[in-house]
Amino acid sequence: MSKNISIADIASALHLSKTTVSFILNGRAEEKRISDKVVKRVLAYVEEVGYRPNSLAKSLRTGKSNTIGLMVEDISGPFFASIARLIEDRAYENGYKIIYCSTDNNTAKTHDLIGMFRDRHVDGYIIAPPPGIENDIAELLKNDLPVILFDRYLPLIDTDHVIVDNQFGTYNATRHLIEQGYKNIAYITFASTQTQMTDRMLGYHKAIDEHKLKPNVKEIVFNRNDAEVIEPLTHFLQENKHLDAVLFGTDHIGTCGLKVINKLGLRVPNDLAVASFDDYSVFELYTCPVTAVAQPITAIADSIITLLLARLNAKTKAPVQKITLSTELIVRSSSKAK
Amino acid sequence: MSKNISIADIASALHLSKTTVSFILNGRAEEKRISDKVVKRVLAYVEEVGYRPNSLAKSLRTGKSNTIGLMVEDISGPFFASIARLIEDRAYENGYKIIYCSTDNNTAKTHDLIGMFRDRHVDGYIIAPPPGIENDIAELLKNDLPVILFDRYLPLIDTDHVIVDNQFGTYNATRHLIEQGYKNIAYITFASTQTQMTDRMLGYHKAIDEHKLKPNVKEIVFNRNDAEVIEPLTHFLQENKHLDAVLFGTDHIGTCGLKVINKLGLRVPNDLAVASFDDYSVFELYTCPVTAVAQPITAIADSIITLLLARLNAKTKAPVQKITLSTELIVRSSSKAK
Repeated sequence: MSKNISIADIASALHLSKTTVSFILNGRAEEKRISDKVVKRVLAYVEEVGYRPNSLAKSLRTGKSNTIGLMVEDISGPFFASIARLIEDRAYENGYKIIYCSTDNNTAKTHDLIGMFRDRHVDGYIIAPPPGIENDIAELLKNDLPVILFDRYLPLIDTDHVIVDNQFGTYNATRHLIEQGYKNIAYITFASTQTQMTDRMLGYHKAIDEHKLKPNVKEIVFNRNDAEVIEPLTHFLQENKHLDAVLFGTDHIGTCGLKVINKLGLRVPNDLAVASFDDYSVFELYTCPVTAVAQPITAIADSIITLLLARLNAKTKAPVQKITLSTELIVRSSSKAK
Repeated sequence: MSKNISIADIASALHLSKTTVSFILNGRAEEKRISDKVVKRVLAYVEEVGYRPNSLAKSLRTGKSNTIGLMVEDISGPFFASIARLIEDRAYENGYKIIYCSTDNNTAKTHDLIGMFRDRHVDGYIIAPPPGIENDIAELLKNDLPVILFDRYLPLIDTDHVIVDNQFGTYNATRHLIEQGYKNIAYITFASTQTQMTDRMLGYHKAIDEHKLKPNVKEIVFNRNDAEVIEPLTHFLQENKHLDAVLFGTDHIGTCGLKVINKLGLRVPNDLAVASFDDYSVFELYTCPVTAVAQPITAIADSIITLLLARLNAKTKAPVQKITLSTELIVRSSSKAK
């Protein structure tokens, strides 16, 4: 029994033509008037040697692999891990498998991975796109391959996407801090030109401007490594002792921020009020539970996979859909009134 | 430009034979004495129509897909998400892509997913195996497909695995609680017959027996949904007010346990000391930072991928390797002396 057994091997072992064996294994024996005796011989042999009909070869014939390519920024982050998991469940229920990978927000790596997906005849794409990947996405669309973008979008590419209302999310969180009496509110975020991050920045400024306060923005270079985030964050908080509140732009920045706050011995909310974009267990279980802008994870995953399955099953081309879901501000003690 | 363009289409468009086109695209033009003029015509046409050499077809010829199948229990858990991420990085550096999926610890689903991986000519397998999957793994090994098990192993299957010393991990954590003066120590875990969980149970009992204390064990039916874990856990803690310490068997149980402790208004460690298997940000950042049995995530991922790459590149069959890595007890204030 070998992993490399082919139709040719079976044909040769049984002194039959490859065509005959192929017709039998593809259920066309009757149509091709192949005798029952030959069919039984082939099926018995196939069982004996443990041959598996080759779905790769099948996908070459049919052009369909029942596989979806899912590209997230970083599978180890709680936001992307939860989304990936929910999409995988829904895809599996609908007969699709997921091939996933992390882009690291790296354009060259993403270009390479899209090539791999195309080579493997992936039926559809779900992508949290890094910057500069427009040409690759346009190429997929030109080839009638459905692409759903999520978390952020590419303004110059007209394809389906599912995002949240990032601008209102930070606007609402900042306004909440102002209403609680905080006046020196910092926004600490990753430096980024991507839509989800520029929208969050806009929302913060909008609330600050509306109340004629002074903005305090700290942008940190994106890094998966906690230590590389904690260091600049520590300096910023040490050098800006006038701050009375801080809004973190992502769950990763928020988690690192709490570690810095602990290290500096700051009490929340008395020394510094805190809120963060994204919500997960860390924020709920922190010493002083942290106010969070919660993304609707289940609804995001549902919208993405529903859109993609509709595209994959569509006989005709439906109009592009751009879906924006609302976030929810979960107020906890970390942002209570002074 | 079409996604379905094939060598046959190119041959037909240029009035050449498929064999000639195939030789050219596989770099064998010189060997086959095909004229430069023909080569240039084919390459120009290929560029014009955007044809991509088909790596599926190539993998059918060579029997190698440069893809690794990774099956974790649940990609949304922090332990498995971190391991998957590190393995993906190392695989990518070495020219391999990862196809991943979550098994949900479900035997039938895992059987189905292994079938999908085989159909796609995956070169090697990394599996956190659910119970009852022995026959499927044996079948892979019989077909010379390398399989690395991790997190838990299958005692009756002789293949490479990477695990941690689970028994010493819980033994050491329980002994630490005893040394701090706690006497009524509960062990709260998922009901399981898998090696990692039975070993953790053994370690707890060993320390309890050694000190002639009375064991208090609560086994909860495995569930990904927090609410289904929180409910039995709440009842158990309400009905066992004599407990002065608790050891949680996994990160998921530990996180749910902290939510229950908050809900019941218990103070840690005064009302109840706490320790948990696994370590992540939640435990470090909890009101009273939680003592944890940390698994060496990076070393686990490194050992797994190093083993698998060695198998994939080996000319001859090397002996089976079973690797056990040590855990580290990280003592924090949640288990301080009474």
